[in-house]
Amino acid sequence: MTSSAQPTSGKPTSAEPSFETLRERFDLPEGRVYLDGNSLGAMPRHVPQRIQDLLHQQWATDLISSWNTNGWIDLPQRTGNRIGRLVGAAPGQVICVDSVSVNIFKLLALALNLRPGRKVILTAEGDFPTDSYIAQGLAQLLGQERCELRRVPMTELEAAIDDDVAVVMLTQVNYRTGELADMPRVTASAHANGSLILWDLAHSAGVIDMGLDAVGVDMAVGCGYKFLNGGPGAPAFAYLNSRYQGQLDQPLSGWLGHRDPFAFSADYEPAPGVAALQAGTPPIISLAALDASLDVFDDVAVATLRERSVVLTSTFIDGLEQAGLLKTCKLLTPNVAERRGSQVSLAHEQGWGVTQALIGAGVIVDFRAPDIVRFGFSPLYNTVDDVETAVVCLARVIREEHFLDARFVHRPKVT
Amino acid sequence: MTSSAQPTSGKPTSAEPSFETLRERFDLPEGRVYLDGNSLGAMPRHVPQRIQDLLHQQWATDLISSWNTNGWIDLPQRTGNRIGRLVGAAPGQVICVDSVSVNIFKLLALALNLRPGRKVILTAEGDFPTDSYIAQGLAQLLGQERCELRRVPMTELEAAIDDDVAVVMLTQVNYRTGELADMPRVTASAHANGSLILWDLAHSAGVIDMGLDAVGVDMAVGCGYKFLNGGPGAPAFAYLNSRYQGQLDQPLSGWLGHRDPFAFSADYEPAPGVAALQAGTPPIISLAALDASLDVFDDVAVATLRERSVVLTSTFIDGLEQAGLLKTCKLLTPNVAERRGSQVSLAHEQGWGVTQALIGAGVIVDFRAPDIVRFGFSPLYNTVDDVETAVVCLARVIREEHFLDARFVHRPKVT
Repeated sequence: MTSSAQPTSGKPTSAEPSFETLRERFDLPEGRVYLDGNSLGAMPRHVPQRIQDLLHQQWATDLISSWNTNGWIDLPQRTGNRIGRLVGAAPGQVICVDSVSVNIFKLLALALNLRPGRKVILTAEGDFPTDSYIAQGLAQLLGQERCELRRVPMTELEAAIDDDVAVVMLTQVNYRTGELADMPRVTASAHANGSLILWDLAHSAGVIDMGLDAVGVDMAVGCGYKFLNGGPGAPAFAYLNSRYQGQLDQPLSGWLGHRDPFAFSADYEPAPGVAALQAGTPPIISLAALDASLDVFDDVAVATLRERSVVLTSTFIDGLEQAGLLKTCKLLTPNVAERRGSQVSLAHEQGWGVTQALIGAGVIVDFRAPDIVRFGFSPLYNTVDDVETAVVCLARVIREEHFLDARFVHRPKVT
Repeated sequence: MTSSAQPTSGKPTSAEPSFETLRERFDLPEGRVYLDGNSLGAMPRHVPQRIQDLLHQQWATDLISSWNTNGWIDLPQRTGNRIGRLVGAAPGQVICVDSVSVNIFKLLALALNLRPGRKVILTAEGDFPTDSYIAQGLAQLLGQERCELRRVPMTELEAAIDDDVAVVMLTQVNYRTGELADMPRVTASAHANGSLILWDLAHSAGVIDMGLDAVGVDMAVGCGYKFLNGGPGAPAFAYLNSRYQGQLDQPLSGWLGHRDPFAFSADYEPAPGVAALQAGTPPIISLAALDASLDVFDDVAVATLRERSVVLTSTFIDGLEQAGLLKTCKLLTPNVAERRGSQVSLAHEQGWGVTQALIGAGVIVDFRAPDIVRFGFSPLYNTVDDVETAVVCLARVIREEHFLDARFVHRPKVT
């Protein structure tokens, strides 16, 4: 069921574990169905022990020597290479560092340097806001003669790539609708116009076998805490195709991106590789949690996870149809497997209340204003049983109008 | 023994614990004297349990709801306010976010906006390199007409503050020499010329009672993993005096710095307060470790720690003199308590070998090229016994030329 347009990446050499085995690797909340792995992935069971070892042995006992003896100094690159396998990048092109927002800033600035004479950052309306916010910050800093953010509807994006466009910035899976962009086609369109492309993989890394190298992508960012299960606020990652790594003059030129950080020389000189995307000292405990979490992917191919993900989302949409729920809830996600990520979004006029009623019934989903209920499916730990429970609960919530009880509940700051 | 120029900050209301009690709060390596808390602070004993609770209860069980129910969303500000007490900042002016490097970028860009018509970032030669590296990155991005990094010897710094200087950037305690800058005087010099001041508190937060508000400092940054003991690569902090918070247009305008991040609106609008210094999602596990670590400061004033620190560094220098060690090792740190931080630096032509021999003898210090051995003293857990052991070991290493055994040891990447 995998789209034939998506190259297979990261095929392991040995036999893959069953999905039951994969699910057993996670510490899932009892009595609940967790369908919010697109916001915060569940915790792999082995992570706490690894963090305890880090705290007691590496921090408290080995102390400062751990930068060498326990490999803290290379952890951003080692973890980056592991994510590289999942996104189809050969080693040396992915690094785990900072946040998606900060990494977008670095890469957009670099893109403008790589395309002198072009000033436009082109993106689609409705993409995750931080991407545009960062572009706005860069444009304000540089001034309108040097940088301009241009936003168009997704349907007009490719037609809008002209000679002014330095870089096209696009999310592979839309956070509201779950729609999957056509990475090979949009990338080719950007390149045909001499533009670079920067993909935001926040909602696709770990569930879509996108093959960044095979597609010829220039740049990408993604986050560690969604389908990669790296823990709350896990460090993000950045991909830079090796063809640009000799020209890596990004503006957040902190000491760990220096060619020789411990020479403490007066002037900045970028490291030769993707290490030059580093700025300051990385948050080792959070980074180690992400690194540990990635173990669950070690013996499974992303192509296999993509197949599983399609089974889950297809079963869910089929279930919604059979239960007659698509009469009262509007399906925002494409009903074609090849065009969606690992998430199904429904619009309902009482979306907030529906979300709260589902959570009250033990089905953890989330809400995006004004009316969207998001169901995220992690192929590592969600099952067809989870899907069926979600359909049954949603049917009851809608039929018995449970959302009426929930809609006046105080809405917290984070939704 | 505290310098009278330093205002007292963070005086607790109840009686303070003894230093034995404070030391008991740390998990220190057995059989060793740890004098590298200026690079990586030791681990408070209670941190692992707090992190286990975070992992098992907040991440694995409460999952996405933890952003509200466990207060993750406000953690950068809550932790920031706790550090605020230690650096003499009223609540609402310090936030824990990103790294020192990234925070310097934000604040320098903001400083240039706040001083239109001025383009110079003035700093002292020999300050920690990342500060200049970041200024170089900003200058390269903006071009020489809008931004210029000017570096002068520390002795000429104040005289070099002219009408072109938008911001003076200076480290309070020099990482190589341990010299303590005169914060009130340099701040006044900057202000007398209409310049802003940005202090780097990486080597002073937690050991110097600097009173940022009382001195009238504009901006500051500092790191969480040295004398604040927040764990390897702990998130950094940034201070912005409340008088600038209405104009907070920093360029790393990520979604968590937005006035209403969860409205997901199309355009960036900064949060009203120091929250606008946030960019992306913070690394919660590392941030929670820092927050937990700060508990050890709860019942002690920084002024008390400063007194203790002066006792430790004074005793060490006295011991070096009495042992005749200042004939073979050159004291780089001022021999006046009011002019030094919590570190003593010695130059020795075989500095690398001396460092390795000391570490081999169980006295953990560190080395800075070309010839500097650094002894960092944490007033929370180092004792006069530690100081005496360090003197005795150094005397033996020098007398018996143990550094000759160590000097050919492979020098690791991180020194």
